[in-house]
Amino acid sequence: MAKTTTSDRIKDLILSDGLRPGDLLPTEGELCDRLGVSRSNVREAIRKLSTLDIVDVRHGHGTYVGEMTLDALVEALVFRGVLSPGDDLRALRDVVEVRRALDFGMSEAIVRSLQGTTNPELSALVDDMVAMAKDGKSFPQQDRAFHTGLLSALDNSLVGQLVAAFWDVHTAVLPRLNVAVAADLEQTAQAHGQMLEAAQSGDVEAFHAAITIHYDPIARALDRDVV
Amino acid sequence: MAKTTTSDRIKDLILSDGLRPGDLLPTEGELCDRLGVSRSNVREAIRKLSTLDIVDVRHGHGTYVGEMTLDALVEALVFRGVLSPGDDLRALRDVVEVRRALDFGMSEAIVRSLQGTTNPELSALVDDMVAMAKDGKSFPQQDRAFHTGLLSALDNSLVGQLVAAFWDVHTAVLPRLNVAVAADLEQTAQAHGQMLEAAQSGDVEAFHAAITIHYDPIARALDRDVV
Repeated sequence: MAKTTTSDRIKDLILSDGLRPGDLLPTEGELCDRLGVSRSNVREAIRKLSTLDIVDVRHGHGTYVGEMTLDALVEALVFRGVLSPGDDLRALRDVVEVRRALDFGMSEAIVRSLQGTTNPELSALVDDMVAMAKDGKSFPQQDRAFHTGLLSALDNSLVGQLVAAFWDVHTAVLPRLNVAVAADLEQTAQAHGQMLEAAQSGDVEAFHAAITIHYDPIARALDRDVV
Repeated sequence: MAKTTTSDRIKDLILSDGLRPGDLLPTEGELCDRLGVSRSNVREAIRKLSTLDIVDVRHGHGTYVGEMTLDALVEALVFRGVLSPGDDLRALRDVVEVRRALDFGMSEAIVRSLQGTTNPELSALVDDMVAMAKDGKSFPQQDRAFHTGLLSALDNSLVGQLVAAFWDVHTAVLPRLNVAVAADLEQTAQAHGQMLEAAQSGDVEAFHAAITIHYDPIARALDRDVV
């Protein structure tokens, strides 16, 4: 943390030049000149910043300021998830608990933002999920779209990205761990509808109850398989 | 996501070899042979995995499986925080909201884990914070130790790391944005004591109330400065 690295200096340069996501960075040669460091130094720093999505290297075009997505977090957490010690599913349980905590913690803001509104797109997603569950099908796309959609009214892009990131980790890790997925697809599908109705009618308590119902099947599946 | 990269193949090798954090990876030469790729390919992949803390390069010793901390997340989020558009403090507000959501969302688990216990170390941190606040001093170390300590009984290392990560982002971004720090040091210091007392006495409602008091000063400071 204490040592200023070339990547730190490139970040400072982005700030001092007032560059924004999508803006073109100076060329490699210009960065060498301005920072007084070697080309290999600049290249290594750019690679690191690219991994963090702080810059975006478009080969043949140049290097741009990146969108700073949480993709790196997802990659690291997915791997940590599948690497969790032995066959205990602790890493996945941790992720599920964080998902539930974020849903609980944002409840009041979500309910406030949706109270008195109607949300045809979210309702359609719920209908799709319920129908697919009745056919014994899982519904990952609809599920993810529902959870991110619920937060989209919030004007907090970080929460939306985190919820999406942990959803991705959860979904990527689950099949690799051979968890016996609970046959409670219908309960999960319907819980989404209960969350939406509670939010639209401004009922924080009912929203909390729906979250509990929503996470119940996966929590039971993890408890059953763990030990 | 679809294309399998050399770094993906190194991750698969870590899994198939049953390596754990702290274990030594095969040498660069062995990785080239086993994966059938060039040395420069392996080097670039190792650099990427090192940025994500999936591997840990100890120069002169070898490359080990890393601890998969969230340091990369912190670095990316700090930068996004200071790069937030114009002088609106949205990124910091987002981070503060996530911190509050995690505290709220974990309330029941925290209260359950601390109910009926006494926690001399956490109490001492509260006393220190209150004393320092009375002298007009800020108390970042004690504050961070308190928040992570509160979660340490939880058996969920991910939540603890996330709370610490967002605390770090908050603290790193705050001075760079010239937010007028609210002069409510004492309120914040005492709110920690209220959180601890509420948890120890098993009172979830009081715990929620203390969280609100805790975040009140920073929420007000951000609103005041943000238009």
